Amino acid sequence: MYTAYLASIMSEQADIALIGLAVMGQNLILNMNDNGFVVCAFNRTVEKVDKFLANEAKGTKIIGAHSLEEMVSKLKKPRRVMLLVRAGQAVDDFITKLQPLLNKGDIIIDGGNSEYTDTNRRVTHLAQYGILYVGSGVSGGEEGARHGPSLMPGGSPEAWSHIKPIFQSIAAKANSEPCCDWVGPDGSGHFVKMVHNGIEYGDMQLICEAYHLMKYGLQLDNDKIAEVLDEWNKGELSSYLIEITRDILKFRDSDNKHLLDKIRDKAGQKGTGKWTAISSLEYGIPLTLIGEAVYARCLSSLKEERVEANKQLQGPSGAKFDGNMKEYIEHVQQVCYCANAFLGNIKEAFDKNPELNNLLLDNFFKNAIHQCQTSLRKVVVLGVTLGIPLPAFSSALAFYDGYRSSWLPANLIQAQRDYFGAHTYELQSEPGKWHHTNWTGHGGQVSSTTYEK
Amino acid sequence: MYTAYLASIMSEQADIALIGLAVMGQNLILNMNDNGFVVCAFNRTVEKVDKFLANEAKGTKIIGAHSLEEMVSKLKKPRRVMLLVRAGQAVDDFITKLQPLLNKGDIIIDGGNSEYTDTNRRVTHLAQYGILYVGSGVSGGEEGARHGPSLMPGGSPEAWSHIKPIFQSIAAKANSEPCCDWVGPDGSGHFVKMVHNGIEYGDMQLICEAYHLMKYGLQLDNDKIAEVLDEWNKGELSSYLIEITRDILKFRDSDNKHLLDKIRDKAGQKGTGKWTAISSLEYGIPLTLIGEAVYARCLSSLKEERVEANKQLQGPSGAKFDGNMKEYIEHVQQVCYCANAFLGNIKEAFDKNPELNNLLLDNFFKNAIHQCQTSLRKVVVLGVTLGIPLPAFSSALAFYDGYRSSWLPANLIQAQRDYFGAHTYELQSEPGKWHHTNWTGHGGQVSSTTYEK
Ligand SMILES: NC(=O)c1ccc[n+]([C@@H]2O[C@H](COP(=O)([O-])OP(=O)(O)OC[C@H]3O[C@@H](n4cnc5c(N)ncnc54)[C@H](OP(=O)(O)O)[C@@H]3O)[C@@H](O)[C@H]2O)c1
Ligand SMILES: NC(=O)c1ccc[n+]([C@@H]2O[C@H](COP(=O)([O-])OP(=O)(O)OC[C@H]3O[C@@H](n4cnc5c(N)ncnc54)[C@H](OP(=O)(O)O)[C@@H]3O)[C@@H](O)[C@H]2O)c1
Repeated sequence: MYTAYLASIMSEQADIALIGLAVMGQNLILNMNDNGFVVCAFNRTVEKVDKFLANEAKGTKIIGAHSLEEMVSKLKKPRRVMLLVRAGQAVDDFITKLQPLLNKGDIIIDGGNSEYTDTNRRVTHLAQYGILYVGSGVSGGEEGARHGPSLMPGGSPEAWSHIKPIFQSIAAKANSEPCCDWVGPDGSGHFVKMVHNGIEYGDMQLICEAYHLMKYGLQLDNDKIAEVLDEWNKGELSSYLIEITRDILKFRDSDNKHLLDKIRDKAGQKGTGKWTAISSLEYGIPLTLIGEAVYARCLSSLKEERVEANKQLQGPSGAKFDGNMKEYIEHVQQVCYCANAFLGNIKEAFDKNPELNNLLLDNFFKNAIHQCQTSLRKVVVLGVTLGIPLPAFSSALAFYDGYRSSWLPANLIQAQRDYFGAHTYELQSEPGKWHHTNWTGHGGQVSSTTYEK
Repeated sequence: MYTAYLASIMSEQADIALIGLAVMGQNLILNMNDNGFVVCAFNRTVEKVDKFLANEAKGTKIIGAHSLEEMVSKLKKPRRVMLLVRAGQAVDDFITKLQPLLNKGDIIIDGGNSEYTDTNRRVTHLAQYGILYVGSGVSGGEEGARHGPSLMPGGSPEAWSHIKPIFQSIAAKANSEPCCDWVGPDGSGHFVKMVHNGIEYGDMQLICEAYHLMKYGLQLDNDKIAEVLDEWNKGELSSYLIEITRDILKFRDSDNKHLLDKIRDKAGQKGTGKWTAISSLEYGIPLTLIGEAVYARCLSSLKEERVEANKQLQGPSGAKFDGNMKEYIEHVQQVCYCANAFLGNIKEAFDKNPELNNLLLDNFFKNAIHQCQTSLRKVVVLGVTLGIPLPAFSSALAFYDGYRSSWLPANLIQAQRDYFGAHTYELQSEPGKWHHTNWTGHGGQVSSTTYEK
């Protein structure tokens, strides 16, 4: 009798195991449970398993395990184990512990914000043991995890058919299509998530700059700015980030004061924005706006230094906004509109032309930027004049003006490089042919090898 | 007789061997020869050795070798072998070939623009064999190599006393002090050279933007711009880059037309600027200007795309410069002055205060920026209004205004991150304590762990 009882509770009943009971893991488990899957929960600090079962998971089909061995024994085959733990060493540690417990064809899924290069390495490493490995972007934060995230899985292609039913069930739906499909091999799922987060860094920074300009340039208070955003949110500028920013601006603490004003202006980051900027440098793609957004977080985090610098460094003296308020609010709205990432229109643009080099050359985006470029110029000029830093707006404009310049002063860079380093240059008239000039009349004729890296 | 003859030409006569007979290597050898050192030259493509001996090295004490074995046999002990070859694989290849030919205490020096992380690795690798390894920045290009470079050696500390006499003799002199001292362990010499090159990327980009603005904004021709630079070069703005830019602007081709106008505007790069930007991201240091300078080269290299974009994307319509020419030339001069890296004053600032966080907080630099900030604002506004991209000037100003802001809108970033990802935030009133708010009233109470990376 006792053995039968034991066997029954120890039987292979769970569809998937999920390790990591912090905010993302807990919510994803509850989401899977809602969708009819039996999930076995585990966490390094094992007490959290019992706490979770006794509270958030009470009355559900969710089960728990107190060791990895127990967890593995409770899984249907091929076993599916999903990690939602801190990216980095924690993931490698769990992989090392799981590998001997798993069999060929079993699947490990990492749903954390891992570096795609780590995922590349892990896919290859586990392939030796026949274990399939998936790195999946999970987007939408706490709310998304609970009610429908966007999922970006990539890695061992054989894994896809085994995780597809779970992943597409729990994912958000857009026009009843799941926001989840197979991205590609190796770390491509995490690469896409990385770029997605990088774009979010840019979006957030732009909203912050609009907030900064409205607060200290136009001298609007939180409630008024919230009202402005609320208006925007009713029109073509409607977006999740605008919506939550409006709510944040209105949010009052228990003392009825605005919580936002009390929050320290020192931005944290967990790495994905930084990795996006680093990748762009490695691939030679001018991702200036995201670069500036990442640096803006770095600068914000030098809070103590800024407080000191503020005592010593002067801004424009006596500068004050004296334009038309309504007009300038509209300018800010225009630039925020242009800065928005319109996913639907992006998809349409690439459906129309899969070879599109730059969204600015798609008609929708071209019209949008043509509509707003005057506003963007006005907004940047206002910031410059008032001494309000707008690094992302400024760099967006400089990029736009650079991108639409058939000529840029890089001929001078090439001439300088050839002058002091004999690096050679091309002529406009014969691209691909490299020349060296003895600029000074007394340098040698030996030139450096030209190679781009 | 014959054996004695052979023995004499094969004897250990050379002070140092130099591998790599491209522009840097040849000039450095001639420089060493001038300073009384006997150099043995070698090159992968061996014919270049004979060509060099028969031409540039004719009548000097320079000797050659046709194999690494021969080269090593000609060296005094401890042997000093310097590489000036293409950075990357070529350096590893030579190390692999040299290691079995060298003894404990022998020294390999890499004078190329290697990544400092590669140098870290190589120092450690060669230490196993007792071989000392030095990575040295070599600055000053062709001219510098020939008549006195700035040298930045770092690596195995025991190597320093053996290379110091050669290095300090051939180096440039400033106030009769050699521009060469020991930087530190591992790749620190290459790290310093990398940052030095990154700064040069910034300097060059700023000069290009000034050139762009004067050419297409103020509508000055090459000779007039050269005149302007010549004036600047006589005053406090006197610098090598301004000087060579003036000469480049004046330089006429055999057909008496300006060569600069014929050079293709597609900037090359060999990696050091990019690595500087990547390092700054890794260390969380807001190096916005250098980042923009690197991206500007990337953008310039998308020449074909820009030509296409130029046909489709609009700039400000009918914008024309209508200010006072003389005044604006002075504004441009002011911003170029501020952008300059005044090495003497930098040294003074750090001599005065080795703990200085930022040069802007040193009196000399503070006064300089206070003098020019109005001009910088005018210049950026002019670029924005005319549609001339000034990414580096814009980001310099945004950085300045951000750095002197005791408050930045990063409180909103923290609120957004806590709203959608439960990432927690600090209060202005209690730094170091992390809070999570249930912003929506329906999210959970579980928060994400706060860790900065
Ligand atoms: N929060 C978001 O909005 C969001 C959105 C998308 C993706 N993500 C990613 O999803 C993952 C989970 O995020 P989260 O915010 O829920 O949690 P988290 O705070 O990033 O991580 C906490 C979890 O990681 C475990 N952990 C930490 N260090 C460990 C170690 N050295 N060894 C073993 N376990 C360790 C913790 O176990 P203990 O309980 O034992 O400490 C806990 O289960 C992260 O990679 C995150 O970047 C987060
Ligand atoms: N030019 C400058 O202003 C400057 C300034 C400071 C530092 N540097 C650095 O100094 C180093 C030398 O620069 P450079 O401009 O004189 O020359 P380079 O064009 O960068 O390199 C040419 C040299 O490298 C050798 N080489 C290339 N690939 C090789 C390989 N796979 N195996 C073996 N040898 C190889 C070539 O040998 P072959 O003749 O057989 O092809 C030649 O000797 C580089 O690291 C450069 O970045 C240059």
